[in-house]
Amino acid sequence: SRSINLAVIPGDGIGQEVVAEGLKVLSAVLPQDVKLETKDFDFGAQRYHATGETLTDADLDALKKHDAILLGAIGDPSVPSGVLERGFLLKLRFAFDHHVNLRPSKLLPGVDTPLKGEPAIDFVVVREGTEGPYTGNGGTIRKGTEHEVATEVSVNTAFGVERVVRDAFARAQARPRKKITLVHKNNVLTFAGHLWTNVFNKVAEEFPEVTTDYIHVDAATIYLVTDPGRFDVIVTDNLFGDIITDLAAAVSGGIGVAASGNINPSGEFPSMFEPVHGSAPDIAGQGKADPTATVLSVALLLRHLGFEAEAARIDEAVSADLAERSGKPARSTSEIGDALAVRVAG
Amino acid sequence: SRSINLAVIPGDGIGQEVVAEGLKVLSAVLPQDVKLETKDFDFGAQRYHATGETLTDADLDALKKHDAILLGAIGDPSVPSGVLERGFLLKLRFAFDHHVNLRPSKLLPGVDTPLKGEPAIDFVVVREGTEGPYTGNGGTIRKGTEHEVATEVSVNTAFGVERVVRDAFARAQARPRKKITLVHKNNVLTFAGHLWTNVFNKVAEEFPEVTTDYIHVDAATIYLVTDPGRFDVIVTDNLFGDIITDLAAAVSGGIGVAASGNINPSGEFPSMFEPVHGSAPDIAGQGKADPTATVLSVALLLRHLGFEAEAARIDEAVSADLAERSGKPARSTSEIGDALAVRVAG
Ligand SMILES: CC(C)[C@H](C(=O)O)[C@@H](O)C(=O)O
Ligand SMILES: CC(C)[C@H](C(=O)O)[C@@H](O)C(=O)O
Repeated sequence: SRSINLAVIPGDGIGQEVVAEGLKVLSAVLPQDVKLETKDFDFGAQRYHATGETLTDADLDALKKHDAILLGAIGDPSVPSGVLERGFLLKLRFAFDHHVNLRPSKLLPGVDTPLKGEPAIDFVVVREGTEGPYTGNGGTIRKGTEHEVATEVSVNTAFGVERVVRDAFARAQARPRKKITLVHKNNVLTFAGHLWTNVFNKVAEEFPEVTTDYIHVDAATIYLVTDPGRFDVIVTDNLFGDIITDLAAAVSGGIGVAASGNINPSGEFPSMFEPVHGSAPDIAGQGKADPTATVLSVALLLRHLGFEAEAARIDEAVSADLAERSGKPARSTSEIGDALAVRVAG
Repeated sequence: SRSINLAVIPGDGIGQEVVAEGLKVLSAVLPQDVKLETKDFDFGAQRYHATGETLTDADLDALKKHDAILLGAIGDPSVPSGVLERGFLLKLRFAFDHHVNLRPSKLLPGVDTPLKGEPAIDFVVVREGTEGPYTGNGGTIRKGTEHEVATEVSVNTAFGVERVVRDAFARAQARPRKKITLVHKNNVLTFAGHLWTNVFNKVAEEFPEVTTDYIHVDAATIYLVTDPGRFDVIVTDNLFGDIITDLAAAVSGGIGVAASGNINPSGEFPSMFEPVHGSAPDIAGQGKADPTATVLSVALLLRHLGFEAEAARIDEAVSADLAERSGKPARSTSEIGDALAVRVAG
């Protein structure tokens, strides 16, 4: 009989609330014969303040035993910027080799966008997750003096670029439009740019049905607001992916509905699924957070584990729920979770 | 008597056409007693193909003798990506120490924006122009093999960051709202991020009237489409500035009206003014290009040289011209230039 052994990291701020709803919908959608086991982990600001720890080797060993990880949000203003980001979020992505950072953008009917004319938006960004300027390479000399020099080194390897580019091509191949766009800045960052462009062109030969395109990252932000319909699959570097997926979320319904997967395709380590939004401490504990992004992240998680029918049921439930929202009074976090749980069970 | 000794670089594609109109408006706006001398330089794709040269030491010496530089656009698909960008555009910015890259964004009445609700947009981005990931530091090993490694090094110095941050604070101080936002990614790029944040906070003490704010670059792209009115002055790194100013241009009327200045505030080297758009080879030579961005760049140039009244006359003429455009048939490049020249002379 099938089972899911899930590590749950509610985290900080609204993380707790949205994860509760994600789990509610997950339980509701799973068939009776699937055994769901969850284990909670207390990572985040509280544990950091209590112990000084963000993510230990023992933690990684414990997480490793699970099929997947569901994360709410990590981050709190009481912790200096960078400590939890580098010490937990990025440490986990690197330790578990989450090199495919998957971020779909779809403007669903009834959902508000800041763009005029309700454009058709349906693309997925495949962001590299373990290289680029995120490696933590670099350093500082003469810190705090007028002669300080700080460097950040973007590291790009043929190995790392090729595996994510190939993953993105396979996704493009499986989509109706079969189109892929490389986003980079190869006219300025010529070392990394040549590597990305050459690997992209080489892998393209293996996918003759896929139409290819290249856009500089600066121009990509223009298209994301003037012609987002032109995108199908985007593959890009870690930092460019970070930037354009926030913009993509903003134009396709906001971060309240933006889901993401930090995927290790080989399955050597568990993949992690999380909403794109942060911990939003200003609204934490008030039942105001929209759990939809977390619920959609649960759908990505299920799809990753092979539960395609269940993932599709969640996607449909969310579409139906969003379509009915407009003009109605705002519901609480748990009311939205309840409504989605009813829909997926129905 | 006053004079302007101007180096003119029409460049490639539509560069030629828009620069002609920029000069037309410049001649029309200048008082009789100001002597305008211009010298054309033939940089760009043609010269590169003919000679292999992009920008020689002799060229730099010749350019140096001018009060300012007006540039149309450089770039052509016949030249490999990066050759003219690194070999001309960036080489010039670095050689002439153009550390203040000034990019105002203002949504003028009557101008179309992709955003709903006609938001009030009036901010200026002060982009660092001589450091960050643009320095060309980095390299490639094992090129073309499966073991290739390519690095890009972002170099940030206290000297370089402080001068541009101070320039931006002074601009904020001089504006009615007196607000400045640092845009960076200090939670991930912690070495450069700490330097930028510390310098920003230190310089802030010298400007007690200026309200300060910090936003991560990814979140900044969200605000640029959901709440662009929150920005007054933005100061940021070279690459982040490149990305967000294209987005800023897109939401505030498009790159047809986006002007920029590559400024050396000390005056040791001439500053360069150019539209944000590229050479648009697809519409070159057809009289379809909008010269407005170049004309507004001429206004920035005049303001930089101390011709404030003339700069203001150009800004007003452009506002009036744009306000009258909507619903009218499109005019040619030279028709728009003629109309603006008449207005500024009037
Ligand atoms: C919190 C931060 C480390 C993270 C990133 O930059 O990747 C976030 O912005 C994201 O996009 O998941
Ligand atoms: C053409 C390129 C080198 C340039 C840059 O990246 O700075 C352009 O995008 C710009 O913004 O002026």
